[in-house]
Amino acid sequence: MSDMTSTADAPRSPGRPRSIRADEAIVEATLDLLAEGSTIEALSIEAIAARAGVGKATIYRRWPGKDALLLDALRRLKGIVPQPAGHSVRDDLVLLVGAVGHHIDPRARKIMPCLVPEVNRSPDHFQLYQNIIEPRRQLMREVLRRGVRDGDLRADLDVELTMALLTGPMLMQRMLRWHPELDERILPEKIVDGVLEGIRAR
Amino acid sequence: MSDMTSTADAPRSPGRPRSIRADEAIVEATLDLLAEGSTIEALSIEAIAARAGVGKATIYRRWPGKDALLLDALRRLKGIVPQPAGHSVRDDLVLLVGAVGHHIDPRARKIMPCLVPEVNRSPDHFQLYQNIIEPRRQLMREVLRRGVRDGDLRADLDVELTMALLTGPMLMQRMLRWHPELDERILPEKIVDGVLEGIRAR
Repeated sequence: MSDMTSTADAPRSPGRPRSIRADEAIVEATLDLLAEGSTIEALSIEAIAARAGVGKATIYRRWPGKDALLLDALRRLKGIVPQPAGHSVRDDLVLLVGAVGHHIDPRARKIMPCLVPEVNRSPDHFQLYQNIIEPRRQLMREVLRRGVRDGDLRADLDVELTMALLTGPMLMQRMLRWHPELDERILPEKIVDGVLEGIRAR
Repeated sequence: MSDMTSTADAPRSPGRPRSIRADEAIVEATLDLLAEGSTIEALSIEAIAARAGVGKATIYRRWPGKDALLLDALRRLKGIVPQPAGHSVRDDLVLLVGAVGHHIDPRARKIMPCLVPEVNRSPDHFQLYQNIIEPRRQLMREVLRRGVRDGDLRADLDVELTMALLTGPMLMQRMLRWHPELDERILPEKIVDGVLEGIRAR
Protein backbone atom coordinates (compact mmCIF):
# COMPACT_ATOMS: atom_id res chain seq x y z
CA MET A 1 0.00 0.00 0.00
CA SER A 2 1.31 3.46 -0.88
CA ASP A 3 2.11 6.02 1.80
CA MET A 4 -0.98 8.22 1.93
CA THR A 5 0.96 11.29 3.03
CA SER A 6 3.37 11.63 0.11
CA THR A 7 1.23 14.30 -1.47
CA ALA A 8 4.07 16.71 -2.29
CA ASP A 9 4.47 15.63 -5.91
CA ALA A 10 1.00 14.20 -6.45
CA PRO A 11 -1.65 16.17 -8.35
CA ARG A 12 -4.27 17.69 -6.02
CA SER A 13 -7.48 15.72 -5.89
CA PRO A 14 -10.72 17.73 -6.00
CA GLY A 15 -12.01 16.32 -2.64
CA ARG A 16 -10.41 16.38 0.79
CA PRO A 17 -6.62 16.45 0.77
CA ARG A 18 -5.06 13.02 1.17
CA SER A 19 -3.27 14.07 4.34
CA ILE A 20 -6.58 14.75 6.11
CA ARG A 21 -7.87 11.37 5.02
CA ALA A 22 -4.73 9.78 6.47
CA ASP A 23 -5.14 11.69 9.75
CA GLU A 24 -8.67 10.43 10.06
CA ALA A 25 -7.77 6.87 9.18
CA ILE A 26 -5.09 6.90 11.89
CA VAL A 27 -7.39 8.37 14.56
CA GLU A 28 -10.19 5.97 13.59
CA ALA A 29 -7.83 3.00 13.75
CA THR A 30 -6.68 4.07 17.23
CA LEU A 31 -10.26 4.36 18.52
CA ASP A 32 -11.30 1.08 16.89
CA LEU A 33 -8.44 -0.82 18.52
CA LEU A 34 -9.24 0.68 21.95
CA ALA A 35 -12.96 -0.05 21.56
CA GLU A 36 -12.11 -3.65 20.68
CA GLY A 37 -10.40 -4.01 24.05
CA SER A 38 -6.77 -3.08 23.54
CA THR A 39 -5.29 -1.44 26.62
CA ILE A 40 -3.40 1.82 26.18
CA GLU A 41 -0.29 -0.03 27.26
CA ALA A 42 -0.68 -2.78 24.67
CA LEU A 43 -1.57 -0.37 21.85
CA SER A 44 1.37 0.06 19.47
CA ILE A 45 2.12 2.44 16.61
CA GLU A 46 2.72 -0.69 14.52
CA ALA A 47 -0.79 -1.99 15.17
CA ILE A 48 -2.36 1.42 14.49
CA ALA A 49 -0.40 1.80 11.25
CA ALA A 50 -1.44 -1.67 10.07
CA ARG A 51 -5.09 -1.01 10.90
CA ALA A 52 -5.08 2.41 9.22
CA GLY A 53 -3.30 1.11 6.13
CA VAL A 54 -0.43 3.59 6.43
CA GLY A 55 3.26 3.33 7.22
CA LYS A 56 4.61 3.98 10.72
CA ALA A 57 6.53 6.96 9.35
CA THR A 58 3.24 8.54 8.30
CA ILE A 59 2.09 8.49 11.92
CA TYR A 60 5.37 9.85 13.26
CA ARG A 61 5.29 12.73 10.78
CA ARG A 62 2.01 13.87 12.37
CA TRP A 63 2.38 12.97 16.04
CA PRO A 64 5.57 12.87 18.13
CA GLY A 65 4.45 9.61 19.74
CA LYS A 66 1.66 7.41 20.99
CA ASP A 67 0.54 9.72 23.82
CA ALA A 68 0.05 12.72 21.53
CA LEU A 69 -1.94 10.57 19.10
CA LEU A 70 -4.04 9.16 21.95
CA LEU A 71 -4.77 12.65 23.24
CA ASP A 72 -6.09 13.71 19.82
CA ALA A 73 -8.07 10.49 19.40
CA LEU A 74 -9.65 10.52 22.86
CA ARG A 75 -10.56 14.21 22.61
CA ARG A 76 -12.30 13.35 19.35
CA LEU A 77 -14.65 11.07 21.31
CA LYS A 78 -16.01 14.04 23.23
CA GLY A 79 -16.72 16.21 20.21
CA ILE A 80 -16.19 19.96 20.16
CA VAL A 81 -15.81 21.88 23.41
CA PRO A 82 -19.13 23.53 24.33
CA GLN A 83 -19.20 27.33 24.21
CA PRO A 84 -20.95 29.04 27.14
CA ALA A 85 -23.18 31.89 25.99
CA GLY A 86 -21.92 34.16 28.76
CA HIS A 87 -25.29 35.58 29.83
CA SER A 88 -26.27 33.56 32.90
CA VAL A 89 -23.89 31.75 35.21
CA ARG A 90 -26.52 29.11 35.88
CA ASP A 91 -27.18 28.39 32.19
CA ASP A 92 -23.47 28.27 31.39
CA LEU A 93 -22.88 25.82 34.23
CA VAL A 94 -25.79 23.62 33.10
CA LEU A 95 -24.23 23.49 29.61
CA LEU A 96 -20.78 22.56 30.94
CA VAL A 97 -22.05 20.03 33.50
CA GLY A 98 -24.13 18.40 30.75
CA ALA A 99 -20.93 17.85 28.75
CA VAL A 100 -19.15 16.07 31.65
CA GLY A 101 -18.70 12.42 30.75
CA HIS A 102 -20.72 12.99 27.57
CA HIS A 103 -19.37 11.64 24.30
CA ILE A 104 -20.61 11.96 20.74
CA ASP A 105 -18.90 8.74 19.68
CA PRO A 106 -20.51 5.44 20.76
CA ARG A 107 -17.07 3.83 21.08
CA ALA A 108 -16.57 5.99 24.17
CA ARG A 109 -18.81 3.71 26.25
CA LYS A 110 -16.31 0.93 25.69
CA ILE A 111 -13.15 3.00 25.90
CA MET A 112 -13.62 5.52 28.73
CA PRO A 113 -14.42 3.19 31.66
CA CYS A 114 -11.36 1.11 30.70
CA LEU A 115 -9.20 4.19 31.18
CA VAL A 116 -9.90 4.26 34.93
CA PRO A 117 -7.61 1.34 35.80
CA GLU A 118 -4.93 2.63 33.43
CA VAL A 119 -5.03 6.14 34.89
CA ASN A 120 -4.44 4.55 38.29
CA ARG A 121 -1.57 2.37 37.11
CA SER A 122 0.52 4.89 35.24
CA PRO A 123 1.54 8.53 35.86
CA ASP A 124 1.79 9.01 32.08
CA HIS A 125 -1.79 7.90 31.58
CA PHE A 126 -2.87 10.08 34.50
CA GLN A 127 -1.30 13.03 32.70
CA LEU A 128 -2.97 12.03 29.44
CA TYR A 129 -6.34 12.00 31.21
CA GLN A 130 -5.68 15.41 32.76
CA ASN A 131 -4.76 16.77 29.33
CA ILE A 132 -8.05 15.51 27.88
CA ILE A 133 -10.23 17.20 30.49
CA GLU A 134 -8.23 20.36 31.23
CA PRO A 135 -9.62 22.53 28.37
CA ARG A 136 -13.18 21.87 29.60
CA ARG A 137 -12.16 22.40 33.21
CA GLN A 138 -10.68 25.76 32.25
CA LEU A 139 -13.99 26.84 30.68
CA MET A 140 -15.86 26.04 33.89
CA ARG A 141 -13.25 27.87 35.97
CA GLU A 142 -13.79 30.99 33.85
CA VAL A 143 -17.58 30.85 34.24
CA LEU A 144 -17.24 30.53 38.03
CA ARG A 145 -14.76 33.41 38.24
CA ARG A 146 -17.08 35.56 36.14
CA GLY A 147 -19.91 34.67 38.55
CA VAL A 148 -17.86 35.86 41.51
CA ARG A 149 -16.82 39.05 39.70
CA ASP A 150 -20.43 39.85 38.77
CA GLY A 151 -21.68 39.20 42.31
CA ASP A 152 -23.80 36.16 41.36
CA LEU A 153 -21.62 33.74 43.35
CA ARG A 154 -20.25 34.14 46.87
CA ALA A 155 -17.16 36.29 47.08
CA ASP A 156 -15.24 33.63 49.03
CA LEU A 157 -15.98 30.89 46.46
CA ASP A 158 -13.54 27.97 46.38
CA VAL A 159 -13.39 27.55 42.60
CA GLU A 160 -11.57 24.18 42.48
CA LEU A 161 -13.87 22.66 45.13
CA THR A 162 -16.93 23.97 43.28
CA MET A 163 -15.75 22.32 40.07
CA ALA A 164 -15.51 19.03 41.95
CA LEU A 165 -19.03 19.53 43.37
CA LEU A 166 -20.43 20.19 39.91
CA THR A 167 -18.58 17.58 37.87
CA GLY A 168 -18.26 14.66 40.33
CA PRO A 169 -21.97 13.73 40.52
CA MET A 170 -22.40 13.93 36.73
CA LEU A 171 -19.33 11.84 35.98
CA MET A 172 -20.25 9.17 38.53
CA GLN A 173 -23.69 8.94 37.03
CA ARG A 174 -22.40 8.69 33.45
CA MET A 175 -19.61 6.28 34.32
CA LEU A 176 -21.25 3.99 36.89
CA ARG A 177 -24.97 4.82 36.95
CA TRP A 178 -24.15 5.53 40.60
CA HIS A 179 -27.78 6.29 41.52
CA PRO A 180 -29.87 4.24 39.08
CA GLU A 181 -32.99 6.26 39.85
CA LEU A 182 -31.59 9.65 38.75
CA ASP A 183 -32.67 10.84 35.29
CA GLU A 184 -29.53 11.72 33.32
CA ARG A 185 -31.32 14.17 31.04
CA ILE A 186 -32.41 16.59 33.77
CA LEU A 187 -29.47 15.86 36.06
CA PRO A 188 -27.24 18.75 34.88
CA GLU A 189 -29.92 21.29 35.89
CA LYS A 190 -30.62 19.58 39.18
CA ILE A 191 -26.91 19.41 40.07
CA VAL A 192 -26.32 23.08 39.24
CA ASP A 193 -29.40 24.26 41.14
CA GLY A 194 -28.54 22.01 44.10
CA VAL A 195 -24.99 23.37 44.33
CA LEU A 196 -26.14 26.97 43.79
CA GLU A 197 -28.78 26.92 46.53
CA GLY A 198 -27.35 24.48 49.07
CA ILE A 199 -29.35 22.09 51.21
CA ARG A 200 -29.42 23.81 54.61
CA ALA A 201 -32.78 25.02 55.84
CA ARG A 202 -33.00 28.83 55.90
CA MET B 1 -4.94 -31.25 51.21
CA SER B 2 -7.89 -32.17 53.43
CA ASP B 3 -11.19 -30.36 53.15
CA MET B 4 -10.97 -27.71 55.86
CA THR B 5 -14.71 -27.68 56.47
CA SER B 6 -15.24 -31.29 57.48
CA THR B 7 -15.38 -30.40 61.16
CA ALA B 8 -18.45 -32.42 62.04
CA ASP B 9 -16.55 -35.42 63.37
CA ALA B 10 -13.29 -33.70 64.28
CA PRO B 11 -12.49 -32.74 67.87
CA ARG B 12 -12.90 -28.97 68.50
CA SER B 13 -9.61 -27.12 68.47
CA PRO B 14 -9.12 -24.52 71.23
CA GLY B 15 -8.46 -21.60 68.81
CA ARG B 16 -10.66 -20.30 66.03
CA PRO B 17 -12.96 -22.89 64.52
CA ARG B 18 -11.58 -24.41 61.35
CA SER B 19 -14.57 -23.21 59.35
CA ILE B 20 -13.72 -19.55 60.06
CA ARG B 21 -10.13 -20.17 58.94
CA ALA B 22 -11.45 -21.68 55.70
CA ASP B 23 -13.79 -18.70 55.15
CA GLU B 24 -10.89 -16.34 55.51
CA ALA B 25 -8.61 -18.34 53.24
CA ILE B 26 -11.29 -18.32 50.54
CA VAL B 27 -11.95 -14.58 50.80
CA GLU B 28 -8.22 -13.83 50.86
CA ALA B 29 -7.63 -16.01 47.80
CA THR B 30 -10.41 -14.18 45.95
CA LEU B 31 -8.95 -10.76 46.74
CA ASP B 32 -5.40 -11.88 45.91
CA LEU B 33 -6.45 -13.15 42.50
CA LEU B 34 -8.34 -9.92 41.72
CA ALA B 35 -5.43 -7.77 42.91
CA GLU B 36 -3.09 -9.75 40.66
CA GLY B 37 -5.17 -8.69 37.66
CA SER B 38 -7.82 -11.36 37.21
CA THR B 39 -11.04 -9.92 35.84
CA ILE B 40 -14.29 -10.82 37.59
CA GLU B 41 -15.29 -12.63 34.43
CA ALA B 42 -12.14 -14.75 34.31
CA LEU B 43 -12.21 -15.54 38.04
CA SER B 44 -13.36 -19.12 38.65
CA ILE B 45 -14.37 -21.07 41.74
CA GLU B 46 -11.74 -23.61 40.66
CA ALA B 47 -8.96 -21.02 40.75
CA ILE B 48 -10.13 -19.64 44.11
CA ALA B 49 -10.32 -23.13 45.62
CA ALA B 50 -6.84 -24.00 44.38
CA ARG B 51 -5.39 -20.75 45.73
CA ALA B 52 -7.13 -21.15 49.12
CA GLY B 53 -6.12 -24.80 49.42
CA VAL B 54 -9.71 -26.02 49.80
CA GLY B 55 -12.05 -28.10 47.68
CA LYS B 56 -14.67 -26.48 45.45
CA ALA B 57 -17.38 -28.11 47.58
CA THR B 58 -16.09 -26.20 50.60
CA ILE B 59 -16.75 -22.93 48.78
CA TYR B 60 -20.20 -23.98 47.59
CA ARG B 61 -21.20 -25.00 51.14
CA ARG B 62 -20.63 -21.39 52.23
CA TRP B 63 -21.62 -19.34 49.20
CA PRO B 64 -24.29 -20.13 46.60
CA GLY B 65 -22.00 -18.95 43.81
CA LYS B 66 -19.24 -16.65 42.63
CA ASP B 67 -21.27 -13.43 42.90
CA ALA B 68 -22.16 -14.00 46.56
CA LEU B 69 -18.52 -14.75 47.37
CA LEU B 70 -17.38 -11.66 45.47
CA LEU B 71 -19.87 -9.51 47.35
CA ASP B 72 -18.47 -10.69 50.71
CA ALA B 73 -14.88 -10.32 49.54
CA LEU B 74 -15.29 -6.84 48.04
CA ARG B 75 -17.21 -5.57 51.07
CA ARG B 76 -14.29 -6.78 53.19
CA LEU B 77 -12.03 -4.31 51.35
CA LYS B 78 -14.02 -1.40 52.73
CA GLY B 79 -13.94 -2.50 56.36
CA ILE B 80 -16.83 -2.06 58.75
CA VAL B 81 -19.65 0.33 57.90
CA PRO B 82 -19.15 3.64 59.76
CA GLN B 83 -21.71 4.45 62.47
CA PRO B 84 -22.98 8.04 62.52
CA ALA B 85 -23.16 9.43 66.06
CA GLY B 86 -26.59 10.97 65.41
CA HIS B 87 -25.93 14.35 67.05
CA SER B 88 -25.13 16.68 64.15
CA VAL B 89 -26.23 16.20 60.55
CA ARG B 90 -23.08 17.93 59.36
CA ASP B 91 -20.74 15.69 61.39
CA ASP B 92 -22.58 12.54 60.36
CA LEU B 93 -22.35 13.53 56.69
CA VAL B 94 -18.62 14.30 57.02
CA LEU B 95 -18.12 10.80 58.46
CA LEU B 96 -20.06 9.11 55.67
CA VAL B 97 -18.54 11.19 52.86
CA GLY B 98 -15.09 10.39 54.26
CA ALA B 99 -15.86 6.68 53.86
CA VAL B 100 -16.80 7.02 50.16
CA GLY B 101 -14.18 5.28 48.05
CA HIS B 102 -12.13 4.64 51.19
CA HIS B 103 -10.74 1.15 51.76
CA ILE B 104 -8.84 -0.36 54.64
CA ASP B 105 -7.23 -2.99 52.41
CA PRO B 106 -4.38 -1.86 50.12
CA ARG B 107 -5.46 -4.39 47.48
CA ALA B 108 -8.47 -2.13 46.86
CA ARG B 109 -6.32 0.34 44.91
CA LYS B 110 -5.68 -2.37 42.35
CA ILE B 111 -9.12 -3.97 42.41
CA MET B 112 -11.69 -1.16 42.58
CA PRO B 113 -10.73 0.90 39.50
CA CYS B 114 -10.76 -2.32 37.46
CA LEU B 115 -14.40 -2.83 38.41
CA VAL B 116 -15.47 0.25 36.43
CA PRO B 117 -15.16 -1.41 33.00
CA GLU B 118 -16.75 -4.60 34.32
CA VAL B 119 -19.70 -2.77 35.86
CA ASN B 120 -20.28 -1.20 32.45
CA ARG B 121 -20.05 -4.48 30.56
CA SER B 122 -22.34 -6.66 32.61
CA PRO B 123 -25.72 -6.14 34.32
CA ASP B 124 -24.74 -8.80 36.89
CA HIS B 125 -21.60 -6.89 37.82
CA PHE B 126 -23.59 -3.67 37.94
CA GLN B 127 -25.90 -5.34 40.45
CA LEU B 128 -22.93 -6.64 42.44
CA TYR B 129 -21.55 -3.10 42.64
CA GLN B 130 -24.93 -1.73 43.74
CA ASN B 131 -25.09 -4.41 46.44
CA ILE B 132 -21.67 -3.41 47.76
CA ILE B 133 -22.55 0.26 48.15
CA GLU B 134 -26.24 0.06 49.08
CA PRO B 135 -25.80 -0.41 52.87
CA ARG B 136 -23.66 2.75 53.05
CA ARG B 137 -26.04 4.61 50.79
CA GLN B 138 -28.91 3.67 53.11
CA LEU B 139 -27.05 5.15 56.10
CA MET B 140 -26.61 8.47 54.31
CA ARG B 141 -30.26 8.48 53.26
CA GLU B 142 -31.28 8.09 56.92
CA VAL B 143 -29.05 10.96 58.07
CA LEU B 144 -30.50 13.23 55.38
CA ARG B 145 -34.09 12.30 56.27
CA ARG B 146 -33.36 12.95 59.94
CA GLY B 147 -31.96 16.38 58.96
CA VAL B 148 -35.18 17.24 57.14
CA ARG B 149 -37.31 15.99 60.03
CA ASP B 150 -35.33 18.03 62.56
CA GLY B 151 -35.51 21.17 60.42
CA ASP B 152 -31.74 21.32 59.75
CA LEU B 153 -32.16 20.64 56.02
CA ARG B 154 -34.64 22.20 53.60
CA ALA B 155 -38.08 20.66 53.74
CA ASP B 156 -38.15 20.06 49.95
CA LEU B 157 -34.79 18.23 49.94
CA ASP B 158 -34.21 15.82 47.03
CA VAL B 159 -32.54 13.04 49.01
CA GLU B 160 -31.25 10.97 46.08
CA LEU B 161 -29.84 14.02 44.31
CA THR B 162 -28.18 15.18 47.52
CA MET B 163 -26.48 11.80 47.92
CA ALA B 164 -25.07 12.20 44.40
CA LEU B 165 -23.86 15.73 45.24
CA LEU B 166 -22.12 14.47 48.39
CA THR B 167 -20.63 11.21 47.13
CA GLY B 168 -19.75 12.05 43.50
CA PRO B 169 -16.94 14.55 44.18
CA MET B 170 -15.34 12.29 46.82
CA LEU B 171 -15.44 9.17 44.68
CA MET B 172 -14.03 10.97 41.63
CA GLN B 173 -11.21 12.29 43.74
CA ARG B 174 -10.42 8.89 45.26
CA MET B 175 -10.76 7.01 41.99
CA LEU B 176 -9.19 9.40 39.50
CA ARG B 177 -7.55 12.22 41.48
CA TRP B 178 -9.97 14.30 39.41
CA HIS B 179 -8.65 17.61 40.76
CA PRO B 180 -5.00 16.96 41.66
CA GLU B 181 -4.83 20.10 43.80
CA LEU B 182 -7.60 19.12 46.24
CA ASP B 183 -6.44 17.78 49.63
CA GLU B 184 -8.16 14.43 50.20
CA ARG B 185 -7.91 14.67 53.99
CA ILE B 186 -9.99 17.82 54.38
CA LEU B 187 -12.14 17.19 51.31
CA PRO B 188 -15.06 15.47 53.16
CA GLU B 189 -15.59 18.57 55.34
CA LYS B 190 -15.27 20.93 52.38
CA ILE B 191 -17.72 18.93 50.28
CA VAL B 192 -20.32 18.76 53.07
CA ASP B 193 -20.02 22.46 53.91
CA GLY B 194 -20.12 23.39 50.21
CA VAL B 195 -23.29 21.38 49.63
CA LEU B 196 -24.89 22.62 52.87
CA GLU B 197 -24.32 26.30 52.17
CA GLY B 198 -24.48 26.49 48.37
CA ILE B 199 -22.46 28.84 46.21
CA ARG B 200 -24.93 31.56 45.32
CA ALA B 201 -24.21 35.01 46.72
CA ARG B 202 -26.71 36.06 49.39
